[in-house]
Amino acid sequence: MKWTDKAWESIQPLLHTIFQMPFIQELQSGTLPLEKFQFYMQQDAKYLEHFGRVLAALGSKSEDNRQALDFFEFGKNALVVEKVLHETYFSQFGIASDHPIEIGPVCHHYIHFLKSVAAFEPLEVAMAAVLPCFWIYKVVGDKIFENQSNAQNPYEAWIATYSGTDFADGVTLAKYYVDTMAEQTTEAMQTRMLEAFISASRLEFMFWDAAYAQKVW
Amino acid sequence: MKWTDKAWESIQPLLHTIFQMPFIQELQSGTLPLEKFQFYMQQDAKYLEHFGRVLAALGSKSEDNRQALDFFEFGKNALVVEKVLHETYFSQFGIASDHPIEIGPVCHHYIHFLKSVAAFEPLEVAMAAVLPCFWIYKVVGDKIFENQSNAQNPYEAWIATYSGTDFADGVTLAKYYVDTMAEQTTEAMQTRMLEAFISASRLEFMFWDAAYAQKVW
Amino acid sequence: MKWTDKAWESIQPLLHTIFQMPFIQELQSGTLPLEKFQFYMQQDAKYLEHFGRVLAALGSKSEDNRQALDFFEFGKNALVVEKVLHETYFSQFGIASDHPIEIGPVCHHYIHFLKSVAAFEPLEVAMAAVLPCFWIYKVVGDKIFENQSNAQNPYEAWIATYSGTDFADGVTLAKYYVDTMAEQTTEAMQTRMLEAFISASRLEFMFWDAAYAQKVW
Amino acid sequence: MKWTDKAWESIQPLLHTIFQMPFIQELQSGTLPLEKFQFYMQQDAKYLEHFGRVLAALGSKSEDNRQALDFFEFGKNALVVEKVLHETYFSQFGIASDHPIEIGPVCHHYIHFLKSVAAFEPLEVAMAAVLPCFWIYKVVGDKIFENQSNAQNPYEAWIATYSGTDFADGVTLAKYYVDTMAEQTTEAMQTRMLEAFISASRLEFMFWDAAYAQKVW
Repeated sequence: MKWTDKAWESIQPLLHTIFQMPFIQELQSGTLPLEKFQFYMQQDAKYLEHFGRVLAALGSKSEDNRQALDFFEFGKNALVVEKVLHETYFSQFGIASDHPIEIGPVCHHYIHFLKSVAAFEPLEVAMAAVLPCFWIYKVVGDKIFENQSNAQNPYEAWIATYSGTDFADGVTLAKYYVDTMAEQTTEAMQTRMLEAFISASRLEFMFWDAAYAQKVW
Repeated sequence: MKWTDKAWESIQPLLHTIFQMPFIQELQSGTLPLEKFQFYMQQDAKYLEHFGRVLAALGSKSEDNRQALDFFEFGKNALVVEKVLHETYFSQFGIASDHPIEIGPVCHHYIHFLKSVAAFEPLEVAMAAVLPCFWIYKVVGDKIFENQSNAQNPYEAWIATYSGTDFADGVTLAKYYVDTMAEQTTEAMQTRMLEAFISASRLEFMFWDAAYAQKVW
Repeated sequence: MKWTDKAWESIQPLLHTIFQMPFIQELQSGTLPLEKFQFYMQQDAKYLEHFGRVLAALGSKSEDNRQALDFFEFGKNALVVEKVLHETYFSQFGIASDHPIEIGPVCHHYIHFLKSVAAFEPLEVAMAAVLPCFWIYKVVGDKIFENQSNAQNPYEAWIATYSGTDFADGVTLAKYYVDTMAEQTTEAMQTRMLEAFISASRLEFMFWDAAYAQKVW
Repeated sequence: MKWTDKAWESIQPLLHTIFQMPFIQELQSGTLPLEKFQFYMQQDAKYLEHFGRVLAALGSKSEDNRQALDFFEFGKNALVVEKVLHETYFSQFGIASDHPIEIGPVCHHYIHFLKSVAAFEPLEVAMAAVLPCFWIYKVVGDKIFENQSNAQNPYEAWIATYSGTDFADGVTLAKYYVDTMAEQTTEAMQTRMLEAFISASRLEFMFWDAAYAQKVW
């Protein structure tokens, strides 16, 4: 059994909760209040700035050139998507793109968890910690896309970007690297990887939950 | 005006809130329910493990030998206090010391914020981020000590450790280093230092607030 | 006066020495013994693997998204060039590409100097430390290209890659970022930046010198 | 067979070379020219400043509180010894203690190798990299102490500090931690640990060799 299979199994209850949470349900039906989506998108932009830095930092610690290169590319893509958010979706969804966004408490927590792990924990653990942001996003994105009940979902264009094949390829690659590292390490390390994966998965849930509540400090 | 004076001024409203919060008020009066104190003490033990590592990591980036040495000593002290918690206070307050403590969400947030900043932000910013844990603790500790209304406060012994002169000397030293670094850097950096100081101060508040609510994931 | 102008001025004697050193003179005339070039190219391949990681790591610490993105791209390019060395030039110059290369002492020194500075020194200092590898290479590459005395220089194809406009654009960009950071920091930091720039420049010289001597441990 | 036994075996030829090298032989006989010893002592002072920082940085990445605490203490001790060098031995051996020391190329190499490894390599590898400075020093110190042929060795007092029991205890502890980590990791990692141990051992030799040659940039 692959490490990623075991990891996925371990977050099934959480995934179920995510699929059912109001933010995701209303995003799918197109009934999510605009201000909640705006809040989410702004926090996501800040998240991506930091997530991109984490991915490149992980690449810089990888022994394998191919993995390093792919993680620099992942890092770059996160920043490119952040730019698209600012330059396209922000105006489309009525967000001023020229004033600074204050990072809310959950986004702040998630960002700094990933950066801390990238710096202080073994690379295997850090690689496991960044995986939920790829994988859960992909699965949630696909689910929303498949179940869109509303032909005029105002969030349709945005949803489409996360269910594309480019993003899917990235997820496959990230999983492959994590599985490879898991295979080459000890059981104790695999357990630490799992803990980091679960912590990050919880933060994915909390991120959407905080967006729905528009949670500030 | 010293940077620390400006920083202190900026958190006055927050400090007022901290002094009034139930956790602090009830700790002072000795009426804090034991289970809340137990929760707090366990989270504090985990916090100290990571805080000590952050302090030593900051020392390792310092250009100044004296500052490096003092921060290694601070790091050591945090781990020594953690040991005392485990070996003395845990049994005194009825906490089993031999089973693992799960880090709650706010402690998790605070720990990883400090580690992230230590690794990715300029040293000045990181030094400012660790200061509230010294300084606010000192001020809150002193306030509780002075205002103990109850001669038989069950938390008396514990309170005493935080109002000793050793801890006070550490706070003075930490402030001195932060002021020195602030003087030697740019205004823009001083602003970033202030932001980090405020973020950490908020997390001090949230830490006690979470203990009162015994907040878990 | 820009920081880069001052920095450049400070290494003029060293640059003169570099232009006159046997490795560079014989590379230009095409008389460099093949085994010295082979040694150089293998060490360069290892250097690039680490240099790319350093560049991405620096991007991950940058506050500016554009700078972060450009440094992730620089990091990627270093690994792409390393791949080209392995897949094209190695066979062209008679080097087996499938057995591991032992990093020689000077390459080892240079690599770890850059990684150490990237991790422990302020970002400004680390950005200054990576600049010589861009800039000196460019200037030496151009000089060799202009002065090729031999129409059948066996190293012609390789030389061409370092005098292209893509590489020139990267150098301009790297200098721009270093100057911007220098302008925004203190004089004391600018001095530290200069020291790092000079140390790295010396290591550029030592790298070619070690290749000429085929220096091993 | 313990990892440290295997590691020690692997550097036997190098150790033999170290025992025979002029710097060590003349230190033992007391005939080492003063200016060589002065050069060495100044480089050693700079080395210790950085070595101390590396040790504390490693402690900050350790999962084990006891190990973290011991490495903060090791870090502190390195800086304390550096202070003693400056405040006692410098004047005793006729070195002005108030002007800056330029780090020579080999000391520079060794320092940055250790810092780079501490930041970018797995903790196990970094722990193995710092071990030679403990262990080889101990063995060389003991050997010199035992074989002092000259009752009036001018370097006697200095030699004594490195053959004390405090230093011996530190070496035992450092070896214990490295063996523990080796036992708990994979064979592939043990191999990487060995490579780092050998690289650092070579740099120990080069450090003394450079002192004998008073090697500057």
